[in-house]
Amino acid sequence: MMVRFYAVLLACLDTVSIAVAQPADPLPSWNGGATKTAIVDFVARVTSQGGTDFVPPAERIAVFDNDGTLWCEQPIYFQAAFALDRVKAMAPQHPEWKQQQPFKAFLSHDKEALAAQGEKGLLTLVAAAHSGMTTDAYAASVADWLAQARHPRFNRPYDELVYQPMVELLGYLRANGFKTFIVSGGGVEFMRVWAEKAYGIPPEQVVGSSGVTQFKMGADGKPVLMKLPKVEFIDDGPGKPSGIDRFIGRRPILAFGNSDGDQQMLQWTAAGPGARFLGIVHHTDASREYAYDRQSKIGKLDKAWDEAVRRGWTVVDMAKDWKTVFAFERSGSGASQ
Amino acid sequence: MMVRFYAVLLACLDTVSIAVAQPADPLPSWNGGATKTAIVDFVARVTSQGGTDFVPPAERIAVFDNDGTLWCEQPIYFQAAFALDRVKAMAPQHPEWKQQQPFKAFLSHDKEALAAQGEKGLLTLVAAAHSGMTTDAYAASVADWLAQARHPRFNRPYDELVYQPMVELLGYLRANGFKTFIVSGGGVEFMRVWAEKAYGIPPEQVVGSSGVTQFKMGADGKPVLMKLPKVEFIDDGPGKPSGIDRFIGRRPILAFGNSDGDQQMLQWTAAGPGARFLGIVHHTDASREYAYDRQSKIGKLDKAWDEAVRRGWTVVDMAKDWKTVFAFERSGSGASQ
Repeated sequence: MMVRFYAVLLACLDTVSIAVAQPADPLPSWNGGATKTAIVDFVARVTSQGGTDFVPPAERIAVFDNDGTLWCEQPIYFQAAFALDRVKAMAPQHPEWKQQQPFKAFLSHDKEALAAQGEKGLLTLVAAAHSGMTTDAYAASVADWLAQARHPRFNRPYDELVYQPMVELLGYLRANGFKTFIVSGGGVEFMRVWAEKAYGIPPEQVVGSSGVTQFKMGADGKPVLMKLPKVEFIDDGPGKPSGIDRFIGRRPILAFGNSDGDQQMLQWTAAGPGARFLGIVHHTDASREYAYDRQSKIGKLDKAWDEAVRRGWTVVDMAKDWKTVFAFERSGSGASQ
Repeated sequence: MMVRFYAVLLACLDTVSIAVAQPADPLPSWNGGATKTAIVDFVARVTSQGGTDFVPPAERIAVFDNDGTLWCEQPIYFQAAFALDRVKAMAPQHPEWKQQQPFKAFLSHDKEALAAQGEKGLLTLVAAAHSGMTTDAYAASVADWLAQARHPRFNRPYDELVYQPMVELLGYLRANGFKTFIVSGGGVEFMRVWAEKAYGIPPEQVVGSSGVTQFKMGADGKPVLMKLPKVEFIDDGPGKPSGIDRFIGRRPILAFGNSDGDQQMLQWTAAGPGARFLGIVHHTDASREYAYDRQSKIGKLDKAWDEAVRRGWTVVDMAKDWKTVFAFERSGSGASQ
């Protein structure tokens, strides 16, 4: 009896020492190297009680851009794809659009006429998909779209095009007491529909651009919020520090972006006292995802890249640093291209 | 040996059964009665796994108005007291105010001239205290004021005038898996300075009115956010459901207010499916705090009260339901009046 007890005890100790010696890698989709080491070292420093860089859990705020940082943004921003699909779906309820620009040009595939409408025309299309309905109806339209739409290259639902290494990073940070936020130029109501399932980020930790909503009491005595065709706040570029200040009210200690639209968020995060982590995803992988930077119309990475190099921020080389880009790669059915 | 072990075991069991039979009252500053019972019953219902009213923790969103609901709002909103004190403190740096209305009237105690400036004059004074500086400088000015200013009746720092029963309620809800938010007409940056210490509510769970901020790169290469004299969002009345939608993105299951400015927040919360708790603090206690409702200029409670009675919402009778109003009452030194 005593011998057996002793054996069990030894086995338990073995398990403990194995666990200490070889913890499971929390970032299995990241290749080893300077980037992964920089992440792990930072987290170790700010979570080491008694260390000079220790940060109390309440102040471990981590902010992430979304388009191009947490999920793909090519060939067009996914929210733009949603808006264009929605205008097509809404067209039967809007016979007047057949005679009205920019709808007429868009619905009849008249690219020349659409181009003539310029950026204002595109914004009118986007506004049509994002206003004139209740917040509940809008959320339902996003969910419907996600269930049906497929990405033109990968032939997958758009919310499967999230970067597996970043999903792991979000979970790793939360396991270390961080509170993770999205701070995106995208619409806050668009992202909240799927962000919790995709990233484990709850609605109240999604910061984004927004339109004005208006409280109305319905005929049935039930109030609704109507989405008006009026921009309230653009959470991009210099707007991102304002968004962080208003929604979060604390300066982050970690920020991750991928384009010049994230530069001010990175600067704002970097300017706080104590240890800081600044990361940029550089799209270098045309075979598994896309390759673009200084010349890209979408996700242009130019000035922020220069600043990152100058200040020693961490630039993720997607091709080199990521073992896996999308979770579906593992199942063997990759891109259709 | 065995006997002693048995006795220890019995003692342990005793402790357990005592703990089960008589748990410490989590709401000791609430008198027993229908109001306290309604609160405790609601929490029991939504947290009973398998029960018909069970709500998963992630959806246990509770929202609280601040002025008059979590802390006192008489004889004037505390943020207004802050603004007026600040204008006095800032006056030496603004010699031009001696010739400029409404500053001249206010600084020379010319009530007639100040009244002639109307509401616009007051808003100009408030704006002066809330803009033209960085967000960091503003937060420091609020902290300085709190450290020095005293309430005219209670002669206490303003942040001691928080309602002890509500502080207990916030803690009780959090202990039951709720996430507690402030949703106030007050300034979000004003509240965040002291809300975490006063209520245990972190900055990212404070929703309020806000001014526009502007990102600027300082000469030293450090970015700042400047507070501009421009209102961005008014989180009051019909604005409260919009604020909840934008900042939280989930419909609360519990809402507490005290005035008509909270009516739409209560309606919005009530309109969701499943169990709901709607509460209103009715100021009925002139001796320990203040007594006011339908005729009050500050914290007018009229239409929301009628709706509460009609729909069976919980109306807290401060005089009857609260054993203690302020924590400092317990130390024996009460109001000076």
